[in-house]
Parts: sequence; C-alpha cells; structure tokens
Amino acid sequence: MKIYADNAATTKMSKASIEAVLEYMNNWYGNPSSLYTIGQAAKEKLEEARERVAKAINAEPREIIFTSGGSEADNQALLSAAALGKRKGKNHIISSAFEHHAILHTLNKLEKEGFEITLLPVHSNGIVDPNELSAAINDKTCLVTIMTVNNEIGTIQPIEELGKICRERGVLFHTDAVQAVGHLPIDVKAQNIDMLSASAHKFHGPKGVGFLYAKKGVILSNLIEGGAQERGKRAGTENLAGIAGMTAALEEAIGSIEENKAHIQGIRDYIIEGLSKIPHSALNGDADKRIYGNINFCFEGIEGESLLILLDQKGISASSGSACTSGALDPSHVLLAIGRIHDVAHGSLRLSLGEDITTEQADYIIASVKEIVDYLRGFSPVWQDLLAGKREFIL
Amino acid sequence: MKIYADNAATTKMSKASIEAVLEYMNNWYGNPSSLYTIGQAAKEKLEEARERVAKAINAEPREIIFTSGGSEADNQALLSAAALGKRKGKNHIISSAFEHHAILHTLNKLEKEGFEITLLPVHSNGIVDPNELSAAINDKTCLVTIMTVNNEIGTIQPIEELGKICRERGVLFHTDAVQAVGHLPIDVKAQNIDMLSASAHKFHGPKGVGFLYAKKGVILSNLIEGGAQERGKRAGTENLAGIAGMTAALEEAIGSIEENKAHIQGIRDYIIEGLSKIPHSALNGDADKRIYGNINFCFEGIEGESLLILLDQKGISASSGSACTSGALDPSHVLLAIGRIHDVAHGSLRLSLGEDITTEQADYIIASVKEIVDYLRGFSPVWQDLLAGKREFIL
Repeated sequence: MKIYADNAATTKMSKASIEAVLEYMNNWYGNPSSLYTIGQAAKEKLEEARERVAKAINAEPREIIFTSGGSEADNQALLSAAALGKRKGKNHIISSAFEHHAILHTLNKLEKEGFEITLLPVHSNGIVDPNELSAAINDKTCLVTIMTVNNEIGTIQPIEELGKICRERGVLFHTDAVQAVGHLPIDVKAQNIDMLSASAHKFHGPKGVGFLYAKKGVILSNLIEGGAQERGKRAGTENLAGIAGMTAALEEAIGSIEENKAHIQGIRDYIIEGLSKIPHSALNGDADKRIYGNINFCFEGIEGESLLILLDQKGISASSGSACTSGALDPSHVLLAIGRIHDVAHGSLRLSLGEDITTEQADYIIASVKEIVDYLRGFSPVWQDLLAGKREFIL
Repeated sequence: MKIYADNAATTKMSKASIEAVLEYMNNWYGNPSSLYTIGQAAKEKLEEARERVAKAINAEPREIIFTSGGSEADNQALLSAAALGKRKGKNHIISSAFEHHAILHTLNKLEKEGFEITLLPVHSNGIVDPNELSAAINDKTCLVTIMTVNNEIGTIQPIEELGKICRERGVLFHTDAVQAVGHLPIDVKAQNIDMLSASAHKFHGPKGVGFLYAKKGVILSNLIEGGAQERGKRAGTENLAGIAGMTAALEEAIGSIEENKAHIQGIRDYIIEGLSKIPHSALNGDADKRIYGNINFCFEGIEGESLLILLDQKGISASSGSACTSGALDPSHVLLAIGRIHDVAHGSLRLSLGEDITTEQADYIIASVKEIVDYLRGFSPVWQDLLAGKREFIL
C-alpha cells in the first residue's frame, strides 16, 4: 500500500492546477510589462488571477503581491513591518515560540539590527493565549506575527481575537497562513489580519509561487529590488503560469473545504484513537483546535528517524516535523515549545492527511506504526531503562 | 504576419522545457527535504539538475543556488558581496551606468547603508573600458558587478578581461548574465567570474526560476531566511518542476548557440542595414560587439511608444527598452548612458530576434518600421521644427 501522509510538507498538484500551468506555459508567454498585445494579454491574465486570489481571502486585488512562495512572503512581511516601525521609533516585535523558521530566522536577523523580540509561549496545547499577547504589547511594539496553523502539530490559533487586540492597540498583525490557506476559510477583514503569507504547493498548487496580502496602507519594503513589477514592491518578471496554477488550486481547495474536512477529520480522529492505544504515547497539541488533517504523536523510547524510515519501507510517507529542518539532529523547536523534553521530542511522528485518505489506509497506518514502535522499542536502550525503572516514564 | 521580436523581455517556452515541467509536476512532487522515498527521489532529481546547470557554465554543482529568477540572484549576489566586504572594512562597489535595475536599485540600497558606489561610463559604444575599471579599483573595493550583455542595446562586455583585473586585484567579480546565458558560451573559470546571475525565461525556460553561481569560498548571505534548503542559503521549498524546465531549456539553448547565431545574426544585420536607410536614425551600441539577436535604434523626431503601438497593430511585438521599466515616462537610462540626449532616447526601438525569425519577416519589419516612422514624423512638431531648421538634427 502507498500512502502519502505528508501533505503539510508539500502536496501533489491537482489536475486543474497542472492544466492551468500548462495552458499558460503554452499560450500566455508575453511579458506582462510589455506594451504590445501579447504582453497586455498576459497582464490581463495576471490581474484576473490577482482578483481571484484576493476574493478567496476577502481582500482587495491591490492588497495582493505575488511571491516565489511562503518563505519569501514571510520575510518581506516582517522586514516591511520592521521598516515601518523603525520610522516611527518602534522596535519591538511579538511572535510565538513555535513559528516556522522563515519567521524565526527573520526575527533573528532583525534582533541583530536592534529590534527587541518577544516570543510568546504556546503552552502544552500549542495555542497562544490572547491575554498574554495583550500583556506583551507595549508602546514600542510595531508588529505581532502569529501563524494561523502550526506546521508540525496543526494547532489553530485564535487569529480573529489576536488580530482584534492588535487593531485596538494600533499594532500591525501578520499571520503566516501557509498551513491554513486552502484548508480553512480565511477572511482577512473579519479576522483583523493586516498581512498574511501563503504558499501554493501546500494546497495542491505548484511549488515556487505564493502570495503576500498586505492591507491597503501597509507600505511594503522590497525584498527583491529591480523592475517595477507588483506595483514596484517585488521585482522580477511575473511567474504567470505558476500564478495561474496557484489560482486554480486555491479556488478548488476553498470550494472543497467543508467536504474535505468532513471526510478527513473522521479518519484523522480514528487514527488518533488507534495510535493512542500504543502505550506511552501522546498526541502533541490540542485535540480539538487543530487542522483536520494533522496528527502528531510522540512515542517514548524511540527515535523518530528510524520510525520514518521503516514506515517508508511499508509505503507510508510521513515526517517527524517540518520538512525544512529535516536532516537536523536537533529535536523540533515546536515540540520543545509545547514542553516536550528532548528525549521525548525525538520520538515524534507527523501524519498530515490528504483528501484521498481512506479508512483502509487508516487501519494500515495504525497497524504499521504499532508494529514499528514495538519493534524499535525492542532495540532501544532507553526503553529498556524505562522498563527496568532506571528512568521514569514521561508519557 | 505575427512576429515576436521581444525575446530580450521574455521568450516562449520550448517544447522540451514545457515537457520537463509537466513531467515533474505530475511525477516528482515529493519535498526534497523529506526522508522518505518520494522526497529522496525529488532530492536526487534536484541534485541532478544542479549538476547539469553547473556543467553548462563550467562550474561545480555546489556553486549553484537555485533562485526565483535573475532579479533575486542579482540582489543576493550584491548583498552577499557587500556583507563580505563590510566584514573586511571594505565599502566600495564598482558597477556600470547601464546595468539592469535589479543591480542599480540594489546598489542604491547599499549606498544608503554607507557603501560608496562608482558607476563606470559605458561610452557611446556601450562597452566598459577595462582600463577604466582598473583605475577605479581602490583598496576599499569589495565588488565589481558588470553585466555580460546589456538588456537594451545588446552590447557584450569584455567579461574575461574585467574578471582578470578583479582577480589580480583581489576583488570579487559578479556579472548579471541574464541576457547571455543560453545565448553565448559561458565558462566561469575561463572568464574569471566569481558570481553570475541567470534567468530561465530568457532562454525558453519557465518564468519564476533562475540561478546564482557563486564560486566556492564566496559565502552567500540569505536574501530569504527560513528552512535549510540550498545549503541553508536560500529558504523555501524548491521549485523542482521549474528547475527541471530551466535545466532542459538551458541544455537545449547551449547546444544550439552556434546554429542560432549563424541564422539570427545574418537576419539581424539585414534588418540593421534596412533600418539604417531611414533618415536621421542610428543604431544604439557597438555594431560588432553585440549579441546576435539585438537591434536597437533611435529615430529622431518620434515617440517610441507610438511606434510600438503601431508596430503591434501590424503584428510585430517589440519594445523601446527594458520591459521592467515600461510604463515609465523617463527615457531609458541605458540610452542616456551611451550619450543619447532625452529627445532622441525617447524615439527608441528594440527588436530582439528569436530563432524562428525569417528573411520574409525581416523585410516586413523593415517596411513596417519605415512606414510608421514616416507616418509619425508627419504628426511630430519636433520633426517639423527639425525640418524648418528651428532645431538641429542630432542623428
């Protein structure tokens, strides 16, 4: 059996998205900045895509900048807000301890430039407490950036409430919504969002394309300088075929949210129930306030990497956390942020289910994980110590 | 007749490139950072592409970083060299007056950060004088960046010689080779190039993908922070389908350089000869040291924009200069740099020919331009003043 259960890392492109890319590569090759008919036709297609993307999150077309993906959008959002803050003498930024590295590493860069960074705790449930955000804002705060859905444990943050607090306090609010767009309804107006990042390949669109929403009046700084594309805010000839593929995928994904949720969530809960029966295991992050495709477990006494390799041998593609940091030996900063100790965090498994998941596959996943965890524990000195009472069980 | 004569702005994707993108979108959707088979297969494909791209310019695979295009590569190259210079107490950068805006605007940014920028003149022939480069280098110089082929007038710079001077003086040498890669043989070792930027859509590859070559030992700074992709130097899930399309297009283009040159150059010279017969016109930039597809003329007494619109009505897609700045009312900085005065620079026409150009099309282009220039001059108050002797002819 072949099961791709790493949709939070990347998704397979949808047929509609591939067809859109193909159509644009074949037919709409003009440079949108050119005066002649072929260029202007491309420009029209580009602006049509912008309208459709804007509509999908209840934004205005002029509030959408196309980027090469979520990381670029995150970088540009943070650097823009920091530049705006600096001009007003504000140098304090609030984020959370379990953001994606595109956020955390950009914050590190800003810290070196003199910004003061507060990372809010995310508690054992993996959720930011609005009261703690409120208490952390001071008169130097120029930006709050909190992800909509965590990429490893799938917890959903109270975005509307966090955004409301920011708006009341006059602070810009950005959300890395890379794991949310196409999977949860997003309404930037209703949710009080000033800036939002998204990536097409997380919702069955192409890799190498994403977008940044920035509310009218939020002046963006350029990450990439050069030509006057994207109202002068993002240089480089527009990746129109990629943008068309993203637009098609986005509309398709948004149109299927309810259906996908109904289908996937039931199977997800069935898998969670099955895996919970493995002794000394625990679900990471809140059980209810989490995206419907996400499962993230820790199994005491094993190494996550071995678990993944053996699952792969059984045809199951899964991960221990973020794909962007795989290869790293450090345990996930997300799991540490929700209070898992190093040893336990090492034994993690993320399954992020797609629309094509079946109950038959769910049974196979549960049986496979059980079998491999048992097998690996048989080899594990840590597990032997736990059984012998030389270490204390944590889970 | 339909003639696309704006290949310097963008090119139509080749069949091989579209097929590669399609194959990868369908089959190789794994995240190259993932441990499991599908991810590792994508990783192998990614590294295979890197080897092939490296080979195409005689570089090592580890010297290639994939980017979202030429502008991103230019930005990253300059900011990296500046950061390296700063660490050594060096703050002087040399470039030329007619670089692409991805270079010039990044240099503006660096100037605001305290860097001293020298822009070498490019003279009436549009070529940087190596002696002038040599004289401009001082002990504070950390970077020289000169484009290989100018995007508007197509003049080819003496890259090998400029690179040699930089190497002898211990200064990093970057070249924006966006207009050259795939059209001229590039050998970064023989040409003494330390850093080079390229963009796939200029050689019949997809938009939204390019690469930066950085010689081993040249430490890059991140433009995009986040995940550990591209040896930690460029975050964001890799656009593998785009990279595959670029690789296919690059190999195809490089394999056809001699054939394309032989075919295109003859037709180009025929068009240049034909357009030269229009009174008070002049070719911009050196006639010999220019890329074989480029034609750039000024016609006295007319507005370039009107010329383009009327050419478009006749089915000819052409431009007045860079697509990235079209819409701007200012005359081309490139034409000003080679000494054209404002009025004359306004009446410019760039034709950048593709492989499919025919002599029949060439005749049509010549006849169309002649007819339109005559027609526009009939309406032009400037032309009437010139004829009446109230102004002096410049061309």
